[in-house]
Formats: sequence, C-alpha cells, structure tokens
Amino acid sequence: MRKILLQVDSDLQPSVFDAITALDSVDCVMLRHGAVTPENVTALVHGCMFTRSPQNLRDTAIFIGGSSVEEAEKVLKKVTETLWAPLNVSVMFDPNGCNTTSAAAVYNMASVCALSGKKAAILSGTGPVGQRAAGLLLKLGASVTITSRNIDKAKSASDAIGRRFGKSPECAVMRGDEDIPPILDGAVAALCCGAAGVQLISEKLWREHPTLRVVADVNAVPPLGVEGSDMLWQAHETDGKIVYGAIGIGGLKMKIHRLAISRLFEEKGLILDTEAIYDLAGEAAK
Amino acid sequence: MRKILLQVDSDLQPSVFDAITALDSVDCVMLRHGAVTPENVTALVHGCMFTRSPQNLRDTAIFIGGSSVEEAEKVLKKVTETLWAPLNVSVMFDPNGCNTTSAAAVYNMASVCALSGKKAAILSGTGPVGQRAAGLLLKLGASVTITSRNIDKAKSASDAIGRRFGKSPECAVMRGDEDIPPILDGAVAALCCGAAGVQLISEKLWREHPTLRVVADVNAVPPLGVEGSDMLWQAHETDGKIVYGAIGIGGLKMKIHRLAISRLFEEKGLILDTEAIYDLAGEAAK
Amino acid sequence: MRKILLQVDSDLQPSVFDAITALDSVDCVMLRHGAVTPENVTALVHGCMFTRSPQNLRDTAIFIGGSSVEEAEKVLKKVTETLWAPLNVSVMFDPNGCNTTSAAAVYNMASVCALSGKKAAILSGTGPVGQRAAGLLLKLGASVTITSRNIDKAKSASDAIGRRFGKSPECAVMRGDEDIPPILDGAVAALCCGAAGVQLISEKLWREHPTLRVVADVNAVPPLGVEGSDMLWQAHETDGKIVYGAIGIGGLKMKIHRLAISRLFEEKGLILDTEAIYDLAGEAAK
Repeated sequence: MRKILLQVDSDLQPSVFDAITALDSVDCVMLRHGAVTPENVTALVHGCMFTRSPQNLRDTAIFIGGSSVEEAEKVLKKVTETLWAPLNVSVMFDPNGCNTTSAAAVYNMASVCALSGKKAAILSGTGPVGQRAAGLLLKLGASVTITSRNIDKAKSASDAIGRRFGKSPECAVMRGDEDIPPILDGAVAALCCGAAGVQLISEKLWREHPTLRVVADVNAVPPLGVEGSDMLWQAHETDGKIVYGAIGIGGLKMKIHRLAISRLFEEKGLILDTEAIYDLAGEAAK
Repeated sequence: MRKILLQVDSDLQPSVFDAITALDSVDCVMLRHGAVTPENVTALVHGCMFTRSPQNLRDTAIFIGGSSVEEAEKVLKKVTETLWAPLNVSVMFDPNGCNTTSAAAVYNMASVCALSGKKAAILSGTGPVGQRAAGLLLKLGASVTITSRNIDKAKSASDAIGRRFGKSPECAVMRGDEDIPPILDGAVAALCCGAAGVQLISEKLWREHPTLRVVADVNAVPPLGVEGSDMLWQAHETDGKIVYGAIGIGGLKMKIHRLAISRLFEEKGLILDTEAIYDLAGEAAK
Repeated sequence: MRKILLQVDSDLQPSVFDAITALDSVDCVMLRHGAVTPENVTALVHGCMFTRSPQNLRDTAIFIGGSSVEEAEKVLKKVTETLWAPLNVSVMFDPNGCNTTSAAAVYNMASVCALSGKKAAILSGTGPVGQRAAGLLLKLGASVTITSRNIDKAKSASDAIGRRFGKSPECAVMRGDEDIPPILDGAVAALCCGAAGVQLISEKLWREHPTLRVVADVNAVPPLGVEGSDMLWQAHETDGKIVYGAIGIGGLKMKIHRLAISRLFEEKGLILDTEAIYDLAGEAAK
C-alpha cells in the first residue's frame, strides 16, 4: 500500500516548497490541492477517510499549508472536526513554515542558553512565527515580551497566544532602536520576527548589550533584522553573543519539517501543530 | 512504460476518494484535473492519444468522475467522441460512485434472491444510482417500479432509463409510508436510493411485509432509509428478510471500483459504464 | 533523491501531452501547475530553489508550456530572472511544442538538403514555429523568406526574429498560390507553417517546381498545407522532391522532446530554448 499525502493549500497554486520537502522526506504519492477552503476541504478529507481500512489509514496523511496562516487555521479547524476515529489520519500544520520556523528558532536559542526563568524578547512578534515562538518560550519557562509598532496589535496577539498556549506574554511598543533598551533590560535572548527587509535592532545595541546571550533573526532578505549579522550565521559567537541568521535557522527548520512528515506515517491520528512539531526539534537536530 | 490514469472531474477539486481508490488498485501515475468541462476536456484527451504508440496506449486510461453525474455525462460524451481507434484508450465512468454503487446494490440483491420475473421497487429512484439500478434490474428480467414524490420526475427518469437501457420501469408517487403498500404489493426486493438522512420505509412495514425477501439502502447518514436497519448490515437476515446497509453495500462497491480500474489497463479501448461495471461484480465479489 | 519536474503552464488545465511525454522520458515525479502567470510563478520557482542543496538541485527541473507561446515567454522571463546560481535548476521551454516542432522540421529538411547559402521559404511563417524555424535556418546559413497575408505582420515577425536570433529573414506577402512563384524563385526548401486545415501550396506548383528539393508541412488537420501530400510522409521522395508531413515530422519531434527532458536532469542550470533544443536533434534522430 503506497503512502499518500494530501496537500491542502489555501493559495491558488499549492506550495512547491512543501511538496518537494515532503517528497524528500517520505516515499509517498502526493495529492495536491490549491484554493482549498473550509467549505471544500470536507470532501477531500472524506476521500482520505473512506478509502482505506482503519489500519491502512496509517499510510494516508494530510499536510495543511499556504501563505496565509489565518486561512490555513480555518481549514485545520474544519479538518479536525471532520476526522473521527478510527477513520482518522495524521495531520501536519505548517502554513508559511510558521511551526517549523518557530520551532527551529526557539530550539536553537534554547540549545545555547538556559531560558527557564529568564527574560526573552520577540521583536515584531505579533505574526504567526512570533506568536508561536512566544508560546514555545513561555512553555520553556521564560518570561516573554512581544513587541509591535502598535500596542493594540501586540495586546491582541498576546491574548491569542494566551488562548492557544495557556500563558500570555508581556506587550511593548517598539518603533525604533530607542525603544529597545527597556524591552531588553535584563533579557538573555532576542528573536527578530520582522518582515522581510526590515532592520529591527542596530549592531551597536546588540553587540554592547550587557545581558543578551543569544540573538536570532528569521528575516533572510537584506537589510536583515539584526544589523551587522549574516543570514548564514549558525550559533556564530561574537562579542560574547551567539547569533543565528535566517539561513542558519533554516537548516534545522528543514530537518524538523522532514522529520515531521515522516512521523505522519509512523503513527495514526497525530495532529502535528506547534508543540508537537517543537517536540521533534531535538531529534531533528542530532 | 508507466501506467498513467487521467482523472477528469467536473468539480473544482478533483475527487480524493477516486484518486486513492485508483492508486490502491493499480501502480499508476495520476494526472488529476478538476474544473473539467466538455469544452476543455478535448485537449486533455488529445494529450493521451498523441503521446504513445497505439500499442502502448494500453498503459494510458481515463477516469471520469465528479459530484455532478449530469456534468460528467456531458464530459463522457465529449471524451468518447474525441477518441478514435487505434489511438483510443480505456475509460471508466463513475461520477459520485453511481455505477459502482448501483452495481454493488443490485448484485448483492440478486445474489440472495432470484429477481427474473419478479417485482422489485426502487424507492426514491430517480437519481443517478436509482436510474442505473433500475436499468440493471430490468436487464436481469425483473419488473421494476421507481418512485418519487413527484410523478413528472418519476416519468422523466423512467424515460431516461428507457433511452439508456432499452426498457422503462413503472412509475409511482411515494410521499410517505402510506403510499408504499401498493408499490410493494407482491414485490420481493426493495432498494432505497433516497437522499442522505431521509427515512423512506418504516421498520414495521418492511419487517411484516408478506413477500419482500431483500431490502437494501444506499444512505449512510442517519436517519437511514430503512428504519431499524444498520448501515453495517451485509446480507443480515432478520424476520425472514435479508438486509443490506450502505456500508454493507460499500464493501462490494469498493471491490468493483478497484477491479474496474485494474481492467482499464488490461484491455485497450474499453468504455466501462453501468453494464460493463456490473459485469465485474461477480468477479469482484469472490 | 527523486527527480522532480515542475510543470508550469499558462492554461487553466496544464498540458497532459507534456506530462505524459515527460513521464515517458525520465522516471520523475511531476508537480503540475496550470493558470501560471509571471506574478505567481516566482513562489513556485523559489519552492524549487530553496528545498535542496545546490548539488541535489540537479534532480529538480522546470518545464514551461501552454498553448499560448506569448504568455509562456513572459513566464520564462520571470523564471530566468528568479533563478540564480548555485540555487538554479534546468529549464525547458516548449509551449505548444514550438521549439521541438521547429527543431524537428528544420533538422529533417537540413538532413536531406544542404541549406547553407541556399534559399529557403517559410510559408505563413509569422507564428511561433515559423519564427523559430526561420531563426534556425538563418543560423544554418540559409537565406530565408517568411510570408504572411499581411506585410506588417511579416515585418514585425522578422524584427522579432532579428532581436532573438541576430539575423532577420526577408518578408513577402502571400495571399494565394499566385504569389508563390517569386517567393520560391531559386529556393531549395519550403516549410509550411500555416494554421490547421489551411492549404498553402498547390500540388502542381510544388511538384513542378524547378529548384525545390525539400518540402515540409506542420499542419496535421486536412486540408493539409501541402496539397497532394500525406501527413504520414517522412522523407517521402516524389517527382524529385523530398516531402515531410506533420506526423512524419512528429516522430522526430517526440524524440527531441524526450531527449530534452532527460537532459534537464543531466546538467544543472540549463535553459533549453530554441537553439539548445535544436542542438539535440542530431542525437535524437539517431
């Protein structure tokens, strides 16, 4: 019985990135669907549920992706509502790489710096990667602050994190370098989750910071989020800081993504979302 | 040379059910197309015809599906008009499972009850499954009545069956249990083809019926078409009746579907529509 | 690592012809995308570039097709602008078969008649196949004339050929048989690139022509471009002329197409457009 991975993607063109990564992870046949909505996904999920015996459904799985995390979350909700045991299949949720990226960033930071009971900040942390990284850092026992140019946006993201992960981060407004000192006061870790091509922190500020131990950036489009860093840096040590660039994080991200895909076919009924994907980081990093 | 199955589906999202069933039937590569119309299918069929030698076209086949049987019939018409020997390929037609479902239901009924020269009724029998089941029962020599809430709809379906299968069933109006006694008077078989979640016959009526020998139902969404039955029943004997539920029929339906797909690659130029698919039921049931 | 071919097609339904031909050329997995535009192709190309190591990208390639050569050219431009070494992959460009068809036609003509320094005419030569055939004949050293019913259209095509291939053909108006004698005066080769079902040259004219040595036609829909010819003719000799019909040319076209697909996975970073595809004709013809 062949392994089959149903790719459901909200974009008109289903992600080629996700398809190739899946094909490189497991010897599977892909059934690729773009323009998937909560309305039309039910029939696709039924097609998975009603074609194989409960035992053989271990060889069928679903990957939910797409550039809009918000749309993908609606699709995930519908997919999990539609599946029921024993006719359920495993599902991985990673639209725009938000789960694998946040897992790789947080795992990398935690691997070089004890974070439990310590202060961490996520600059520009209201997007999908920032929110998930905040949730993971909170679960690791860190005290977390997320920033935004707009305090309402930060509060709304903090509330969403609270609903999803059980704890909420602090909020702070950050419009430029001058707002950073109080935010990073006493912090050991800073993760930059800004938009592509937006610098978030000046070189002088992070290099000379008295307590920061690890700095990471998920922006791979110059100018980078961390001025004076290199997107290839992977645990690069400089001025007493350990720095990760976007491509430095990307290596682990890809390993986590591939491992998660292979897990889909090892156990039936998994829902691989943020925490479950993070739990794979240690094995992926080996 | 790899086996290639072109899936043409009128729905925006081509059926995952049909794709997985095909992949579980034959080691083939699927070329899956949704939003297929009589207008755009010609180029797809030409793509099958003009890429391989006549001899090698045995390894190329077409599956026509989709949730609308009416749209699929227009596509089938265009596909068969486009193909010509020796550049023809085999085609299977099973939109919404109408052919495999009606074949499984009728074969199951006929396997437990001689139907030639006997009376059979198809309750709510104007849809794609009901019409095909009527055609098959007529070919088996049964005297068939189809029912509808609306006599004009029944007559129109009966005419369509006559044009397609050469014989027309009787028509009857059935709005509720009270209309059933004359319809089932002397009948040995009743097949319920109602919409999902619509009860068609009361438990008292079928259990106490003096001549009924077999009752079948293709509705898998409670309330079932046959009150007091179980969708899992497969030749379940009770009160002297043999009863089939939707999932009980579904087992044979899947076997017929898989066998039909594998036949596509054994002989060139087949058109597997209602009768040809029914002819596979005996082998599939073994 | 599996070979992966990304099919990008401007048509709503990606070409089945191109998919089957690719699958018959190389043991690859196809990622098929229709409705591709210069706007949405970037993400698809990035999906190729950022999923495998530079070395392993030899096993990823892109095929650009579709019925509109003009739309496909815009997509090709965007694809080549998006790719950069070492994260580049090989690309084949053959919308509507324009490159493989012109390569096969010109190679066939050149294989039976020395063309360098000789006169060749392309009747109805302003379309994608005609323009590419003109470019190839000019590169072979022939003196080329393209014809059209409309002189402005011919001049515009000639200019486009000049920009693309470095040399421009002569232009001539041809509305019917009576315009042909001066166009073919002294010519050794004539290629008919008219629309399907349009006759371009009368039987009397080509059979009795004093200098013509080879005549070819890419129209496979009767009436053929070359009156009194057969679409199956492949180097058919009659009245001292060697004649190729559309299907006669099609055999070599398919071989070139398949060889080009396999080349995509032998070398990284190839752009297989008109000249590179023509360069494969000799090997394909063996």
